[in-house]
Amino acid sequence: MSIVFRQLFDEHSSTLTYLLADALSGDAVLIDSVAEQAALYLGLLQELKLNLVYLLETHAHADHVTGAGLMKERTDALTATGRHTGTTCADVQLADGDTLVFGDELIRVIATPGHTPGCVSYRWRHCVFTGDALLIGGCGRTDFQGGDAGRLYDSITQRLFVLPNETLVYPAHDYKGRRVSSIGQEKLTNERVPGRSKQAFIELMDNLKLPPPRMIDEAVPANQRCGDQYAIIDIHAS
Amino acid sequence: MSIVFRQLFDEHSSTLTYLLADALSGDAVLIDSVAEQAALYLGLLQELKLNLVYLLETHAHADHVTGAGLMKERTDALTATGRHTGTTCADVQLADGDTLVFGDELIRVIATPGHTPGCVSYRWRHCVFTGDALLIGGCGRTDFQGGDAGRLYDSITQRLFVLPNETLVYPAHDYKGRRVSSIGQEKLTNERVPGRSKQAFIELMDNLKLPPPRMIDEAVPANQRCGDQYAIIDIHAS
Repeated sequence: MSIVFRQLFDEHSSTLTYLLADALSGDAVLIDSVAEQAALYLGLLQELKLNLVYLLETHAHADHVTGAGLMKERTDALTATGRHTGTTCADVQLADGDTLVFGDELIRVIATPGHTPGCVSYRWRHCVFTGDALLIGGCGRTDFQGGDAGRLYDSITQRLFVLPNETLVYPAHDYKGRRVSSIGQEKLTNERVPGRSKQAFIELMDNLKLPPPRMIDEAVPANQRCGDQYAIIDIHAS
Repeated sequence: MSIVFRQLFDEHSSTLTYLLADALSGDAVLIDSVAEQAALYLGLLQELKLNLVYLLETHAHADHVTGAGLMKERTDALTATGRHTGTTCADVQLADGDTLVFGDELIRVIATPGHTPGCVSYRWRHCVFTGDALLIGGCGRTDFQGGDAGRLYDSITQRLFVLPNETLVYPAHDYKGRRVSSIGQEKLTNERVPGRSKQAFIELMDNLKLPPPRMIDEAVPANQRCGDQYAIIDIHAS
Protein backbone atom coordinates (compact mmCIF):
# COMPACT_ATOMS: atom_id res chain seq x y z
CA MET A 1 0.00 0.00 0.00
CA SER A 2 1.40 3.34 -1.01
CA ILE A 3 -0.05 5.49 1.75
CA VAL A 4 0.80 6.30 5.34
CA PHE A 5 -1.97 6.87 7.86
CA ARG A 6 -1.27 7.56 11.50
CA GLN A 7 -3.81 8.55 14.11
CA LEU A 8 -2.25 10.40 17.05
CA PHE A 9 -3.82 11.37 20.35
CA ASP A 10 -3.10 14.26 22.70
CA GLU A 11 -4.18 13.11 26.17
CA HIS A 12 -4.43 16.61 27.64
CA SER A 13 -6.99 17.93 25.15
CA SER A 14 -8.27 14.54 23.89
CA THR A 15 -7.40 15.73 20.39
CA LEU A 16 -7.05 13.29 17.50
CA THR A 17 -4.42 14.38 14.98
CA TYR A 18 -3.92 12.69 11.63
CA LEU A 19 -0.77 12.23 9.61
CA LEU A 20 -1.41 11.23 5.99
CA ALA A 21 1.27 10.68 3.40
CA ASP A 22 1.80 9.50 -0.11
CA ALA A 23 4.58 6.98 0.49
CA LEU A 24 5.98 7.20 -3.04
CA SER A 25 6.74 10.93 -2.99
CA GLY A 26 6.92 11.17 0.79
CA ASP A 27 4.63 14.21 0.74
CA ALA A 28 2.56 14.42 3.92
CA VAL A 29 -0.15 16.47 5.60
CA LEU A 30 -1.00 16.87 9.25
CA ILE A 31 -4.61 17.55 10.27
CA ASP A 32 -5.37 19.33 13.57
CA SER A 33 -1.95 19.25 15.17
CA VAL A 34 -1.36 20.15 18.84
CA ALA A 35 1.50 22.45 19.89
CA GLU A 36 2.63 20.21 22.77
CA GLN A 37 3.05 17.24 20.39
CA ALA A 38 5.25 19.01 17.82
CA ALA A 39 8.36 17.01 18.79
CA LEU A 40 6.43 13.77 18.23
CA TYR A 41 5.35 14.90 14.75
CA LEU A 42 8.87 15.99 13.81
CA GLY A 43 10.22 12.63 14.99
CA LEU A 44 7.65 10.74 12.93
CA LEU A 45 8.38 12.78 9.80
CA GLN A 46 12.07 12.02 10.21
CA GLU A 47 11.54 8.33 10.98
CA LEU A 48 9.21 7.82 8.02
CA LYS A 49 11.28 10.11 5.75
CA LEU A 50 8.30 12.32 4.99
CA ASN A 51 8.14 15.86 3.71
CA LEU A 52 5.32 17.87 5.29
CA VAL A 53 3.51 19.98 2.68
CA TYR A 54 0.35 21.08 4.52
CA LEU A 55 -0.67 21.84 8.07
CA LEU A 56 -4.44 21.65 7.93
CA GLU A 57 -6.93 22.83 10.53
CA THR A 58 -10.59 21.92 10.59
CA HIS A 59 -11.28 25.10 12.57
CA ALA A 60 -9.87 27.55 15.14
CA HIS A 61 -9.90 25.23 18.14
CA ALA A 62 -10.95 26.40 21.58
CA ASP A 63 -9.36 23.57 23.55
CA HIS A 64 -5.75 23.43 22.38
CA VAL A 65 -3.20 25.52 20.53
CA THR A 66 -2.39 24.24 17.07
CA GLY A 67 1.06 22.84 16.40
CA ALA A 68 1.08 24.67 13.06
CA GLY A 69 3.18 27.58 14.32
CA LEU A 70 5.95 25.35 15.66
CA MET A 71 5.79 22.97 12.72
CA LYS A 72 5.95 25.77 10.18
CA GLU A 73 9.21 26.94 11.70
CA ARG A 74 10.78 23.50 11.23
CA THR A 75 9.30 22.41 7.87
CA ASP A 76 8.36 23.89 4.49
CA ALA A 77 4.66 23.16 5.05
CA LEU A 78 1.94 25.66 4.24
CA THR A 79 -0.81 26.32 6.78
CA ALA A 80 -4.37 26.02 5.52
CA THR A 81 -7.74 26.71 7.15
CA GLY A 82 -11.29 27.43 6.10
CA ARG A 83 -11.61 30.98 4.78
CA HIS A 84 -14.20 31.89 7.41
CA THR A 85 -12.10 30.95 10.46
CA GLY A 86 -10.63 34.42 10.91
CA THR A 87 -7.09 33.06 10.58
CA THR A 88 -5.84 35.50 8.00
CA CYS A 89 -2.30 34.41 8.83
CA ALA A 90 -2.88 31.02 7.16
CA ASP A 91 -1.03 30.59 3.85
CA VAL A 92 -4.07 29.03 2.18
CA GLN A 93 -7.66 30.16 2.71
CA LEU A 94 -9.89 27.22 1.82
CA ALA A 95 -13.36 27.35 0.27
CA ASP A 96 -15.91 24.57 -0.14
CA GLY A 97 -14.90 22.25 -2.97
CA ASP A 98 -11.24 23.25 -2.98
CA THR A 99 -8.68 20.52 -3.49
CA LEU A 100 -5.35 20.02 -1.78
CA VAL A 101 -2.75 17.79 -3.35
CA PHE A 102 0.07 15.92 -1.59
CA GLY A 103 2.07 13.59 -3.82
CA ASP A 104 -0.52 11.79 -5.92
CA GLU A 105 -3.16 12.08 -3.21
CA LEU A 106 -6.11 14.43 -3.24
CA ILE A 107 -8.06 16.03 -0.38
CA ARG A 108 -11.39 17.71 -1.01
CA VAL A 109 -12.62 20.50 1.26
CA ILE A 110 -16.22 20.35 2.51
CA ALA A 111 -17.55 23.46 4.29
CA THR A 112 -19.26 22.20 7.47
CA PRO A 113 -20.05 25.35 9.47
CA GLY A 114 -22.08 25.38 12.67
CA HIS A 115 -19.68 24.55 15.51
CA THR A 116 -17.88 27.66 14.24
CA PRO A 117 -18.58 29.61 11.02
CA GLY A 118 -15.24 28.55 9.53
CA CYS A 119 -15.35 24.80 10.15
CA VAL A 120 -14.34 22.60 7.24
CA SER A 121 -14.11 18.83 6.85
CA TYR A 122 -11.49 17.13 4.72
CA ARG A 123 -12.44 14.18 2.53
CA TRP A 124 -9.57 11.92 1.51
CA ARG A 125 -10.09 8.56 -0.22
CA HIS A 126 -12.79 6.75 1.78
CA CYS A 127 -12.25 8.90 4.91
CA VAL A 128 -13.66 12.21 6.13
CA PHE A 129 -11.93 14.24 8.83
CA THR A 130 -14.81 16.06 10.46
CA GLY A 131 -13.15 18.20 13.13
CA ASP A 132 -15.80 19.11 15.70
CA ALA A 133 -18.69 19.16 13.23
CA LEU A 134 -19.42 15.45 13.58
CA LEU A 135 -18.02 13.54 16.55
CA ILE A 136 -18.43 9.81 17.19
CA GLY A 137 -21.96 9.55 18.54
CA GLY A 138 -22.28 13.32 18.90
CA CYS A 139 -21.29 16.72 17.51
CA GLY A 140 -19.46 19.87 18.53
CA ARG A 141 -21.20 22.43 20.73
CA THR A 142 -22.66 25.56 19.18
CA ASP A 143 -22.77 28.01 22.09
CA PHE A 144 -19.61 30.05 21.42
CA GLN A 145 -17.30 31.29 18.63
CA GLY A 146 -20.25 32.11 16.37
CA GLY A 147 -21.74 28.64 16.74
CA ASP A 148 -25.08 28.05 15.00
CA ALA A 149 -27.02 24.85 15.66
CA GLY A 150 -29.19 25.20 12.56
CA ARG A 151 -26.14 25.52 10.31
CA LEU A 152 -24.49 22.54 12.03
CA TYR A 153 -27.62 20.43 11.46
CA ASP A 154 -27.50 21.30 7.76
CA SER A 155 -23.76 20.56 7.56
CA ILE A 156 -24.19 17.14 9.15
CA THR A 157 -27.33 16.09 7.31
CA GLN A 158 -26.70 17.70 3.91
CA ARG A 159 -22.91 17.54 3.55
CA LEU A 160 -21.73 14.59 5.65
CA PHE A 161 -24.63 12.13 5.82
CA VAL A 162 -24.83 12.18 2.01
CA LEU A 163 -21.41 10.50 1.74
CA PRO A 164 -21.37 6.71 1.19
CA ASN A 165 -22.18 4.72 4.34
CA GLU A 166 -18.74 3.08 4.28
CA THR A 167 -16.96 6.46 4.50
CA LEU A 168 -14.82 6.45 7.64
CA VAL A 169 -15.43 9.29 10.09
CA TYR A 170 -12.32 10.58 11.86
CA PRO A 171 -13.18 13.43 14.25
CA ALA A 172 -10.89 15.91 16.04
CA HIS A 173 -11.80 14.59 19.48
CA ASP A 174 -13.08 11.66 21.43
CA TYR A 175 -13.35 11.45 25.17
CA LYS A 176 -14.34 7.78 25.51
CA GLY A 177 -11.53 5.89 23.76
CA ARG A 178 -13.33 5.64 20.44
CA ARG A 179 -11.17 6.19 17.38
CA VAL A 180 -13.24 5.74 14.23
CA SER A 181 -16.81 5.63 13.02
CA SER A 182 -18.48 5.57 9.62
CA ILE A 183 -21.22 7.64 8.00
CA GLY A 184 -23.47 4.57 8.14
CA GLN A 185 -22.79 4.12 11.85
CA GLU A 186 -23.45 7.80 12.62
CA LYS A 187 -26.72 7.74 10.66
CA LEU A 188 -27.76 4.82 12.89
CA THR A 189 -26.29 5.68 16.28
CA ASN A 190 -25.43 9.39 16.60
CA GLU A 191 -27.25 10.57 19.71
CA ARG A 192 -27.98 14.10 18.51
CA VAL A 193 -28.96 14.09 14.86
CA PRO A 194 -30.77 11.00 13.46
CA GLY A 195 -34.50 11.02 14.10
CA ARG A 196 -34.44 14.65 15.24
CA SER A 197 -35.86 17.55 13.21
CA LYS A 198 -33.74 20.66 12.66
CA GLN A 199 -35.89 22.56 15.16
CA ALA A 200 -35.58 19.81 17.79
CA PHE A 201 -31.80 19.72 17.24
CA ILE A 202 -31.57 23.51 17.71
CA GLU A 203 -33.54 23.26 20.95
CA LEU A 204 -31.33 20.42 22.18
CA MET A 205 -28.13 22.30 21.39
CA ASP A 206 -29.42 25.57 22.86
CA ASN A 207 -30.09 23.84 26.18
CA LEU A 208 -26.91 21.82 26.75
CA LYS A 209 -25.65 24.31 29.35
CA LEU A 210 -22.02 23.17 29.09
CA PRO A 211 -19.22 24.92 31.00
CA PRO A 212 -16.86 26.98 28.80
CA PRO A 213 -13.75 25.11 27.55
CA ARG A 214 -10.84 25.60 29.93
CA MET A 215 -8.47 26.94 27.30
CA ILE A 216 -10.81 29.05 25.17
CA ASP A 217 -9.37 32.43 26.20
CA GLU A 218 -5.84 31.37 25.29
CA ALA A 219 -6.48 28.90 22.50
CA VAL A 220 -8.78 30.81 20.16
CA PRO A 221 -6.57 33.95 19.84
CA ALA A 222 -3.44 31.77 19.53
CA ASN A 223 -5.06 29.64 16.84
CA GLN A 224 -6.28 32.71 15.02
CA ARG A 225 -2.60 33.69 14.87
CA CYS A 226 -1.92 30.20 13.37
CA GLY A 227 -0.24 29.02 16.55
CA ASP A 228 2.54 31.55 16.29
CA GLN A 229 4.74 30.76 19.33
CA TYR A 230 5.37 34.40 20.14
CA ALA A 231 1.66 34.91 20.42
CA ILE A 232 1.40 31.92 22.76
CA ILE A 233 4.24 33.18 24.94
CA ASP A 234 2.63 36.60 25.10
CA ILE A 235 -0.64 35.10 26.19
CA HIS A 236 0.97 32.87 28.82
CA ALA A 237 2.88 35.83 30.18
CA SER A 238 -0.13 38.12 30.37
CA MET B 1 -9.14 4.75 -5.97
CA SER B 2 -8.88 1.35 -7.51
CA ILE B 3 -10.81 -0.66 -4.96
CA VAL B 4 -14.42 -1.37 -4.17
CA PHE B 5 -15.54 -1.80 -0.57
CA ARG B 6 -19.17 -2.38 0.38
CA GLN B 7 -20.46 -3.23 3.83
CA LEU B 8 -23.81 -5.00 3.73
CA PHE B 9 -26.15 -5.84 6.60
CA ASP B 10 -28.64 -8.66 7.04
CA GLU B 11 -31.30 -7.39 9.45
CA HIS B 12 -32.58 -10.83 10.42
CA SER B 13 -29.26 -12.16 11.72
CA SER B 14 -27.50 -8.79 12.23
CA THR B 15 -24.72 -10.11 9.98
CA LEU B 16 -22.22 -7.77 8.37
CA THR B 17 -21.09 -9.00 4.95
CA TYR B 18 -18.24 -7.44 3.00
CA LEU B 19 -17.74 -7.11 -0.73
CA LEU B 20 -14.18 -6.23 -1.72
CA ALA B 21 -12.98 -5.82 -5.27
CA ASP B 22 -10.00 -4.76 -7.29
CA ALA B 23 -11.68 -2.29 -9.63
CA LEU B 24 -9.09 -2.65 -12.39
CA SER B 25 -9.54 -6.40 -12.92
CA GLY B 26 -13.04 -6.54 -11.47
CA ASP B 27 -12.07 -9.52 -9.32
CA ALA B 28 -14.06 -9.58 -6.08
CA VAL B 29 -14.48 -11.50 -2.85
CA LEU B 30 -17.42 -11.77 -0.50
CA ILE B 31 -16.82 -12.33 3.22
CA ASP B 32 -19.52 -13.98 5.38
CA SER B 33 -22.41 -13.94 2.96
CA VAL B 34 -26.00 -14.72 4.02
CA ALA B 35 -28.22 -17.04 1.96
CA GLU B 36 -31.24 -14.73 2.09
CA GLN B 37 -29.21 -11.85 0.58
CA ALA B 38 -27.86 -13.76 -2.44
CA ALA B 39 -30.03 -11.81 -4.90
CA LEU B 40 -28.64 -8.54 -3.52
CA TYR B 41 -25.06 -9.75 -3.97
CA LEU B 42 -25.73 -10.95 -7.52
CA GLY B 43 -27.31 -7.59 -8.36
CA LEU B 44 -24.31 -5.71 -6.98
CA LEU B 45 -21.84 -7.87 -8.89
CA GLN B 46 -23.77 -7.18 -12.08
CA GLU B 47 -24.17 -3.45 -11.40
CA LEU B 48 -20.48 -2.99 -10.59
CA LYS B 49 -19.35 -5.40 -13.35
CA LEU B 50 -17.44 -7.57 -10.88
CA ASN B 51 -16.29 -11.15 -11.16
CA LEU B 52 -16.54 -13.04 -7.87
CA VAL B 53 -13.46 -15.17 -7.27
CA TYR B 54 -13.80 -16.15 -3.60
CA LEU B 55 -16.60 -16.77 -1.14
CA LEU B 56 -14.85 -16.50 2.21
CA GLU B 57 -16.18 -17.55 5.60
CA THR B 58 -14.65 -16.55 8.91
CA HIS B 59 -16.21 -19.67 10.49
CA ALA B 60 -19.17 -22.05 10.39
CA HIS B 61 -21.85 -19.63 11.62
CA ALA B 62 -24.54 -20.68 14.08
CA ASP B 63 -26.94 -17.82 13.38
CA HIS B 64 -27.42 -17.78 9.61
CA VAL B 65 -26.88 -20.00 6.59
CA THR B 66 -24.05 -18.83 4.35
CA GLY B 67 -24.89 -17.55 0.89
CA ALA B 68 -21.91 -19.48 -0.48
CA GLY B 69 -24.00 -22.40 -1.77
CA LEU B 70 -26.35 -20.17 -3.76
CA MET B 71 -23.58 -17.88 -4.96
CA LYS B 72 -21.40 -20.75 -6.09
CA GLU B 73 -24.20 -21.97 -8.36
CA ARG B 74 -24.36 -18.58 -10.08
CA THR B 75 -20.68 -17.57 -10.21
CA ASP B 76 -17.25 -19.14 -10.74
CA ALA B 77 -16.16 -18.30 -7.18
CA LEU B 78 -14.31 -20.77 -4.99
CA THR B 79 -15.46 -21.30 -1.40
CA ALA B 80 -12.80 -20.96 1.29
CA THR B 81 -12.86 -21.52 5.03
CA GLY B 82 -10.40 -22.21 7.83
CA ARG B 83 -9.16 -25.79 7.66
CA HIS B 84 -10.44 -26.53 11.18
CA THR B 85 -14.07 -25.55 10.53
CA GLY B 86 -15.17 -29.05 9.52
CA THR B 87 -16.37 -27.77 6.13
CA THR B 88 -14.62 -30.34 3.97
CA CYS B 89 -16.84 -29.28 1.08
CA ALA B 90 -15.02 -25.94 0.79
CA ASP B 91 -12.81 -25.63 -2.29
CA VAL B 92 -9.96 -24.07 -0.33
CA GLN B 93 -8.94 -25.10 3.20
CA LEU B 94 -7.11 -22.15 4.74
CA ALA B 95 -4.24 -22.24 7.22
CA ASP B 96 -2.73 -19.43 9.24
CA GLY B 97 -0.55 -17.23 7.04
CA ASP B 98 -2.11 -18.32 3.77
CA THR B 99 -2.69 -15.66 1.15
CA LEU B 100 -5.66 -15.18 -1.15
CA VAL B 101 -5.31 -13.06 -4.26
CA PHE B 102 -8.06 -11.20 -6.11
CA GLY B 103 -6.84 -9.01 -8.97
CA ASP B 104 -3.82 -7.21 -7.57
CA GLU B 105 -5.15 -7.36 -4.03
CA LEU B 106 -3.91 -9.64 -1.28
CA ILE B 107 -5.69 -11.09 1.75
CA ARG B 108 -3.72 -12.71 4.56
CA VAL B 109 -5.31 -15.40 6.74
CA ILE B 110 -4.91 -15.13 10.51
CA ALA B 111 -6.02 -18.13 12.58
CA THR B 112 -8.14 -16.74 15.43
CA PRO B 113 -9.68 -19.81 17.12
CA GLY B 114 -11.70 -19.67 20.31
CA HIS B 115 -15.28 -18.79 19.32
CA THR B 116 -14.96 -21.99 17.26
CA PRO B 117 -11.79 -24.03 16.60
CA GLY B 118 -11.84 -23.11 12.89
CA CYS B 119 -12.27 -19.33 13.13
CA VAL B 120 -10.03 -17.25 10.91
CA SER B 121 -9.69 -13.51 10.41
CA TYR B 122 -8.84 -11.94 7.08
CA ARG B 123 -6.39 -9.05 6.90
CA TRP B 124 -6.65 -6.89 3.79
CA ARG B 125 -4.79 -3.59 3.41
CA HIS B 126 -5.43 -1.66 6.64
CA CYS B 127 -8.52 -3.70 7.56
CA VAL B 128 -9.09 -6.94 9.47
CA PHE B 129 -12.32 -8.90 9.12
CA THR B 130 -12.60 -10.61 12.47
CA GLY B 131 -15.77 -12.69 12.17
CA ASP B 132 -16.99 -13.47 15.70
CA ALA B 133 -13.52 -13.53 17.26
CA LEU B 134 -13.44 -9.80 17.95
CA LEU B 135 -16.68 -7.81 17.89
CA ILE B 136 -17.01 -4.04 18.41
CA GLY B 137 -16.74 -3.67 22.17
CA GLY B 138 -16.99 -7.44 22.73
CA CYS B 139 -16.22 -10.89 21.35
CA GLY B 140 -18.00 -14.04 20.24
CA ARG B 141 -19.32 -16.48 22.84
CA THR B 142 -17.34 -19.63 23.60
CA ASP B 143 -19.98 -21.98 25.03
CA PHE B 144 -20.78 -24.12 21.94
CA GLN B 145 -19.25 -25.49 18.72
CA GLY B 146 -15.97 -26.32 20.44
CA GLY B 147 -15.58 -22.81 21.84
CA ASP B 148 -12.60 -22.21 24.10
CA ALA B 149 -12.29 -18.94 26.02
CA GLY B 150 -8.57 -19.36 26.66
CA ARG B 151 -7.83 -19.81 22.98
CA LEU B 152 -10.03 -16.81 22.13
CA TYR B 153 -8.14 -14.65 24.63
CA ASP B 154 -4.86 -15.65 22.98
CA SER B 155 -6.27 -15.00 19.50
CA ILE B 156 -7.44 -11.52 20.45
CA THR B 157 -4.42 -10.46 22.47
CA GLN B 158 -1.65 -12.19 20.51
CA ARG B 159 -2.94 -12.14 16.92
CA LEU B 160 -5.27 -9.14 16.64
CA PHE B 161 -4.14 -6.62 19.26
CA VAL B 162 -0.61 -6.79 17.81
CA LEU B 163 -1.79 -5.20 14.54
CA PRO B 164 -1.23 -1.42 14.15
CA ASN B 165 -3.69 0.67 16.16
CA GLU B 166 -5.08 2.24 12.99
CA THR B 167 -6.11 -1.18 11.56
CA LEU B 168 -9.85 -1.09 10.97
CA VAL B 169 -11.86 -3.84 12.65
CA TYR B 170 -14.81 -5.14 10.63
CA PRO B 171 -16.68 -7.89 12.53
CA ALA B 172 -19.31 -10.35 11.30
CA HIS B 173 -22.02 -8.91 13.54
CA ASP B 174 -23.18 -5.90 15.43
CA TYR B 175 -26.45 -5.56 17.26
CA LYS B 176 -26.25 -1.86 18.17
CA GLY B 177 -25.83 -0.10 14.83
CA ARG B 178 -22.06 0.09 15.04
CA ARG B 179 -20.21 -0.58 11.79
CA VAL B 180 -16.48 -0.20 12.32
CA SER B 181 -13.85 -0.05 15.02
CA SER B 182 -10.07 -0.08 15.09
CA ILE B 183 -7.48 -2.15 16.93
CA GLY B 184 -6.57 0.97 18.94
CA GLN B 185 -10.21 1.53 19.88
CA GLU B 186 -10.71 -2.10 20.94
CA LYS B 187 -7.55 -2.03 23.05
CA LEU B 188 -9.04 0.98 24.86
CA THR B 189 -12.76 0.20 24.99
CA ASN B 190 -13.51 -3.51 24.47
CA GLU B 191 -15.56 -4.54 27.47
CA ARG B 192 -14.23 -8.09 27.74
CA VAL B 193 -10.52 -8.17 27.08
CA PRO B 194 -8.42 -5.10 28.02
CA GLY B 195 -7.40 -5.03 31.67
CA ARG B 196 -8.53 -8.61 32.21
CA SER B 197 -6.16 -11.56 32.74
CA LYS B 198 -6.62 -14.72 30.69
CA GLN B 199 -8.03 -16.49 33.76
CA ALA B 200 -10.47 -13.66 34.52
CA PHE B 201 -11.58 -13.67 30.86
CA ILE B 202 -12.19 -17.44 30.96
CA GLU B 203 -14.28 -17.05 34.12
CA LEU B 204 -16.27 -14.21 32.55
CA MET B 205 -16.95 -16.18 29.37
CA ASP B 206 -17.83 -19.36 31.26
CA ASN B 207 -20.50 -17.53 33.24
CA LEU B 208 -22.31 -15.55 30.55
CA LYS B 209 -25.25 -18.00 30.59
CA LEU B 210 -26.54 -16.94 27.16
CA PRO B 211 -29.51 -18.69 25.51
CA PRO B 212 -28.56 -20.88 22.50
CA PRO B 213 -28.72 -19.10 19.10
CA ARG B 214 -32.12 -19.57 17.51
CA MET B 215 -30.79 -21.06 14.29
CA ILE B 216 -27.91 -23.20 15.56
CA ASP B 217 -29.52 -26.59 14.81
CA GLU B 218 -30.19 -25.61 11.20
CA ALA B 219 -27.34 -23.24 10.49
CA VAL B 220 -24.28 -25.18 11.63
CA PRO B 221 -25.01 -28.36 9.61
CA ALA B 222 -26.01 -26.27 6.57
CA ASN B 223 -22.84 -24.21 6.84
CA GLN B 224 -20.75 -27.33 7.26
CA ARG B 225 -22.19 -28.37 3.89
CA CYS B 226 -21.05 -24.95 2.54
CA GLY B 227 -24.61 -23.69 2.32
CA ASP B 228 -25.62 -26.29 -0.25
CA GLN B 229 -29.24 -25.35 -1.03
CA TYR B 230 -30.44 -28.95 -1.13
CA ALA B 231 -29.16 -29.38 2.40
CA ILE B 232 -31.05 -26.24 3.47
CA ILE B 233 -34.26 -27.41 1.82
CA ASP B 234 -33.90 -30.82 3.50
CA ILE B 235 -33.47 -29.18 6.87
CA HIS B 236 -36.40 -26.80 6.37
CA ALA B 237 -38.61 -29.72 5.29
CA SER B 238 -37.69 -31.98 8.19
